[in-house]
Amino acid sequence: MEERLRIALAQINPTVGDLKGNVEKIINFTMQAKELKADIITFPELAICGYPPEDLLLKKQFVKDDLEALNSLIEKISDILVIVGFVDRDREGNLYNAAALIHEGKLKGISHKIELPNYGVFDEKRYFKGGDKPFVFALGRIVLGVNICEDIWVKGGVTKYQADRGAGLIMNISASPYHSGKVALREKMLKQRAEETNAYICYNNLVGGQDELVFDGGSIILDPKGKRIVTGKQFEEDLVVADLPIIVKNKLKTRVRREYCIKSDKLKEAKKPDLPKRYCKKLDRINEIYNALVLGTRDYVRKSGFKKVVIGLSGGIDSSLTAVIASDAIGCENVIGISMPSRYSSQETRSDSKTLAGNLGIRFIVVPMDSIFNVYLMLLEKEFLGFERDVTEENIQARIRGNILMAFSNKFGWLVLTTGNKSETSVGYCTLYGDMAGGFAVIKDVPKTLVYELARFRNEREKRKLIPQTILDREPSAELKQEQKDVDSLPPYSVLDPILKGYVEEDKSLEQIVARKFNSEIVKNIIHMVDRNEYKRRQAPPGIKITPKAFGKDRRLPITNRYREF
Amino acid sequence: MEERLRIALAQINPTVGDLKGNVEKIINFTMQAKELKADIITFPELAICGYPPEDLLLKKQFVKDDLEALNSLIEKISDILVIVGFVDRDREGNLYNAAALIHEGKLKGISHKIELPNYGVFDEKRYFKGGDKPFVFALGRIVLGVNICEDIWVKGGVTKYQADRGAGLIMNISASPYHSGKVALREKMLKQRAEETNAYICYNNLVGGQDELVFDGGSIILDPKGKRIVTGKQFEEDLVVADLPIIVKNKLKTRVRREYCIKSDKLKEAKKPDLPKRYCKKLDRINEIYNALVLGTRDYVRKSGFKKVVIGLSGGIDSSLTAVIASDAIGCENVIGISMPSRYSSQETRSDSKTLAGNLGIRFIVVPMDSIFNVYLMLLEKEFLGFERDVTEENIQARIRGNILMAFSNKFGWLVLTTGNKSETSVGYCTLYGDMAGGFAVIKDVPKTLVYELARFRNEREKRKLIPQTILDREPSAELKQEQKDVDSLPPYSVLDPILKGYVEEDKSLEQIVARKFNSEIVKNIIHMVDRNEYKRRQAPPGIKITPKAFGKDRRLPITNRYREF
Repeated sequence: MEERLRIALAQINPTVGDLKGNVEKIINFTMQAKELKADIITFPELAICGYPPEDLLLKKQFVKDDLEALNSLIEKISDILVIVGFVDRDREGNLYNAAALIHEGKLKGISHKIELPNYGVFDEKRYFKGGDKPFVFALGRIVLGVNICEDIWVKGGVTKYQADRGAGLIMNISASPYHSGKVALREKMLKQRAEETNAYICYNNLVGGQDELVFDGGSIILDPKGKRIVTGKQFEEDLVVADLPIIVKNKLKTRVRREYCIKSDKLKEAKKPDLPKRYCKKLDRINEIYNALVLGTRDYVRKSGFKKVVIGLSGGIDSSLTAVIASDAIGCENVIGISMPSRYSSQETRSDSKTLAGNLGIRFIVVPMDSIFNVYLMLLEKEFLGFERDVTEENIQARIRGNILMAFSNKFGWLVLTTGNKSETSVGYCTLYGDMAGGFAVIKDVPKTLVYELARFRNEREKRKLIPQTILDREPSAELKQEQKDVDSLPPYSVLDPILKGYVEEDKSLEQIVARKFNSEIVKNIIHMVDRNEYKRRQAPPGIKITPKAFGKDRRLPITNRYREF
Repeated sequence: MEERLRIALAQINPTVGDLKGNVEKIINFTMQAKELKADIITFPELAICGYPPEDLLLKKQFVKDDLEALNSLIEKISDILVIVGFVDRDREGNLYNAAALIHEGKLKGISHKIELPNYGVFDEKRYFKGGDKPFVFALGRIVLGVNICEDIWVKGGVTKYQADRGAGLIMNISASPYHSGKVALREKMLKQRAEETNAYICYNNLVGGQDELVFDGGSIILDPKGKRIVTGKQFEEDLVVADLPIIVKNKLKTRVRREYCIKSDKLKEAKKPDLPKRYCKKLDRINEIYNALVLGTRDYVRKSGFKKVVIGLSGGIDSSLTAVIASDAIGCENVIGISMPSRYSSQETRSDSKTLAGNLGIRFIVVPMDSIFNVYLMLLEKEFLGFERDVTEENIQARIRGNILMAFSNKFGWLVLTTGNKSETSVGYCTLYGDMAGGFAVIKDVPKTLVYELARFRNEREKRKLIPQTILDREPSAELKQEQKDVDSLPPYSVLDPILKGYVEEDKSLEQIVARKFNSEIVKNIIHMVDRNEYKRRQAPPGIKITPKAFGKDRRLPITNRYREF
């Protein structure tokens, strides 16, 4: 026999700690789902408090407040089954990453996350105890399994257990952070899980930016053969609804505990409105990365309570791309570009940054900084007598610029966005308290070669040269001394970037990287630079993770470290 | 029947990643123990690679190199049983925090750590798999249990299991980080463990600084009644040796596996040299904290390859104490003080910083910074027209000073030590890229009230006013505007510090803190300041943990965080 179930996945963008705002959002989406006469609506992992709450979880008051927020939600729910992520606590004070089943103003059951990720950016074993048994319940004669994020990634694990106990439908609520390539990985995994269990898979992923992380949404419902029924938007909130025809048996398996049986006579009766056709085309690689950067930037600015951002525009590709992303994220009227030319700034870069600002329609301020630099040189002349000019004087300039940007930030409440890319952050080709000064590092995880790809992509989408062609064509330079070029200090980015990928993202050894046909001396030199500059990265602002391994929580190396492979 | 065992605990200070250097140190201490005819020598947890190696463990080459270092050690060992910490790896690639038993050029057994700490500063579940069975072995007819750090902290756990299987002697190798109060906590726990098991407890703790952590040594041997037999020095390397009379039974319990029986006919024969009398008086609270700060600073400087440090001397108590600690850590000839007075610097603070430098015998440089500040003001006048002077202009000054200090650092290779204390770091009474600019924050975890205690302590120890009395007496001021005093922006430190302790270190709620008899509005205001300044701390340099909860790895809060208790 077949029953038709209307399932809604609310792919929402909560804010960490905003319990009240998040509950309002949950109620709002629940109302929408009720209008569509959905039988069940799910919300992402830890939707009530936002993900990841990190050490807020160590505050007892926070957990108490989260539970109270859940209770305030429960009493407002009727005529629909809600599955929502929250922080559960047992009598001994252990915490669980949990999903609440709410029905007719009552908490009908709780599913605890069993598989706790404690790698990469995840620290879940720092906070949570793992659940002891996969959760299965019955809605009328339909048996469902509810599990949480990592639970569904394990082959033959929680999901299989639930299907073995009769679940024809698996509801997974997730907060799965984005990196390039993750979408395909996730869909492949979900397809395997469907095939393995012969159950419908309803995968609800969080959306939104939180510090270093972007959650990309793209919730998905698969049929028991692993075929996609519907997918949610990427990088946007969405309510993903589908009707699932489910074969039910006359008798429930005995393993489903009686208390988790929810009566549901309405299932067949309700006449339901037609669902709008929906078609979500998956974004291609570059578009996807670009959208991640835009969402990550927008949410950091917005959720931290800023309205405007300020960017130092050098006329180079990094600051140009950052300004374009910022304009897309929060509107050109909220972006200010400041050019701070020195004696080493060419006429070209000066005029290019102005052109860019004009193309974007952002406010443009010029603060020449040579006069300040001169006083520094004078003041330090005596102490530095007999020493050659070196990187010191370059850094002084970069730090003067940092000070100017921060002055605008302090005076007007603008957030400073830094413009360093992953290539230079890796090898330390950047100045602490100089170009690294700022609250958020938009392209910190974007290698230089990808910076160019993104810039070209964005120009093409605009169908005009948003970023002037001269910026795209010019050889990269920090313009901190006469005739300076990046290639004076670094190998070409086409060589540097794949070496960094091997060393930083894949933890490959010298030997393994050289085996990919790179010059051994160059690789050694780069490894040395990466290792030596850990202290700079420790003081860098957070930035958006878009690769499998970003700097930050993802990569935790000691600063004091004498390990050398060679 | 009784047998006499001579046990040596080598409380060493390895450097993370310096596999070769650490092995040399291990061999060196082993030689010393052999001269004393010790039967067993132990080394701390992960002594071969240093602790904590963090994400170095994710590099396969690193684990391979660590195992090779162990092998190079094994072949050099004879006539003594060595127990040393290393990283073990199984065929599936799982890693274990392990202790190797080495005897006569052979690896005789491996003990895996079972209890993996994953709280506070610890992330061991990120890297290691827990061992499945406590390790017991026999040396002659003496049964010993070997366990690792956290293993011994659990009541009725690994240690009890080992004693139940006949171990009359528990060898624990640890890397237990220091905080004030930890020594008493540790000894109390060890005493309980001895009483619980009726076994000798030989507790070998690491010593040395590693980034934010200081390991304080203080290794200890307790008899089966929990009475102290001998203790190692605090904050110094030491070889702690004692003779233990152990009652042995004629038959070994069957549970001790045959392969872990080491023949030892020599035990009774060897005529052993007398042990020197040793008496380690435990340091009192302030002395202990001071020593932790000195060791933490010395090891950060030394292990990171610096020779000299530079400190901005303001004539205030924080920079004065920092300069004193630095001088004690690496010698006054390696410390440079730079005074950077402005129009707001009083004659008193100017002369006090000079006096301090003279008292310490450190090099003293004066760089007046007003001329630079003037150019900034001129340059920004137009843009800031119509806006009042505010914290912006204060921060510009602080950042000019940061730039000057960093210029000296870049030009001469000196490490900049920052001088911010925990009180101001908590509430954000400090300038990013200004006074927060530097490589290492010596007193970052020291509340202001404790800064005064430490300064007085050090003056008393010197039996003269090392830090001028006027510095101790003067009301704290940042001197960034006319007549500025800390109390204009903050409550008195005697009120601020206990509130911060409740909120930052103990995760107490508003209600709980107010219940300690503090004004509710003041507490709210402080909580708000702490929450709002998370972004500053994220970009702060590392500093030495001396409290139960320091900023850094110990306290991981989201920056984007809308949680407000009230």
